[in-house]
Amino acid sequence: MEQRVTLITLGVSDLARSKAFYEALGWQGQEVQETVFFQAGGLGLVLWGREKLAADCGIEPGPPPAGFGGIALAHNVRSEAEVDELLATAEAAGGTVTKPAAVNDIGFYSSAFTDPDGHAWEIAHNPDFPLADDGTVTLPDFGQA
Amino acid sequence: MEQRVTLITLGVSDLARSKAFYEALGWQGQEVQETVFFQAGGLGLVLWGREKLAADCGIEPGPPPAGFGGIALAHNVRSEAEVDELLATAEAAGGTVTKPAAVNDIGFYSSAFTDPDGHAWEIAHNPDFPLADDGTVTLPDFGQA
Repeated sequence: MEQRVTLITLGVSDLARSKAFYEALGWQGQEVQETVFFQAGGLGLVLWGREKLAADCGIEPGPPPAGFGGIALAHNVRSEAEVDELLATAEAAGGTVTKPAAVNDIGFYSSAFTDPDGHAWEIAHNPDFPLADDGTVTLPDFGQA
Repeated sequence: MEQRVTLITLGVSDLARSKAFYEALGWQGQEVQETVFFQAGGLGLVLWGREKLAADCGIEPGPPPAGFGGIALAHNVRSEAEVDELLATAEAAGGTVTKPAAVNDIGFYSSAFTDPDGHAWEIAHNPDFPLADDGTVTLPDFGQA
C-alpha cells in the first residue's frame, strides 16, 4: 500500500449547510449529485450524507458520535496571525471554536474548531513542520525512527 | 483557507497495535513519544491515543462511536487486481473487510476495510479519477460546477 490518501470524505447531515460552511472558508468545490468535491492539494475532500457514506463503507451508521468521532484534520498555516484570522473566519461561518489559539505544550501556536457536523480541524503554525510553496508538508526527521 | 490538509490524525486505543497494522500494510513511520507519524504523499498521517487527540482538539472524547465515526479515507489504486491484493493484505494484518470488492453502482471496482479502531478505508480502482505517477489525484471536471 503506497503511503498516500486519495480522498477524505466527511459524513454530513445537511449537504447545503456544509457546502456553505466550506465555501465561507474560501473553498471552491463541485456539487455532483448528492456530494460536494473539493480539490485539496493532491487529494479530494468530499462531503456526503453520513448514512450514505457509512453504507458505502459497509458500516452500520449508528447514531452520530456523542463526543469525539475519532479523526482530526490539521491545517497548518505560515504565521500565528493566519491562525487567528482563519479561526475568526471559521467562527463567523458557523464553526465552533473548541480550542482558542495559544502556544501549546509542545511550543507551537495551535487552535481547533469543529465544522457543522462536529468534524475537528486543528489550525496551527508549527515552524518545525515547514510548508512548501504548494502547501505540502514533508515531515521532519524526528531522529527516533 | 487554502484548499489543503496538513495532517490526518487517527485516534487509536493501542498505539503499538495500530502501528503494527499500518506497517503490515507496508507503511513506514516514525514513532515520536506517544505518536506515530507517516509521510502520506504531501501530508502526514498520524496515530495518537484517542483521548489525547480529543483533548488536543478541546473536544470531550466520550465513548468511541458505536457505529460509523463519520469520516472515511479512500485509497485509490491503479488496477482491480491491486484492490484485491490490498484488501487481502489488510485482512491478514487484522483489518476487517466491511465491503467485499465489487463493481459499485457508479461503475467502478470498490471495497472497504476498517483498521483496528474502526477507521474506514475505501480501496478502489476508479478510472475516472486518474492517479499521477506520484499518487496524487486531480479531480475531474464534473461539468456541474
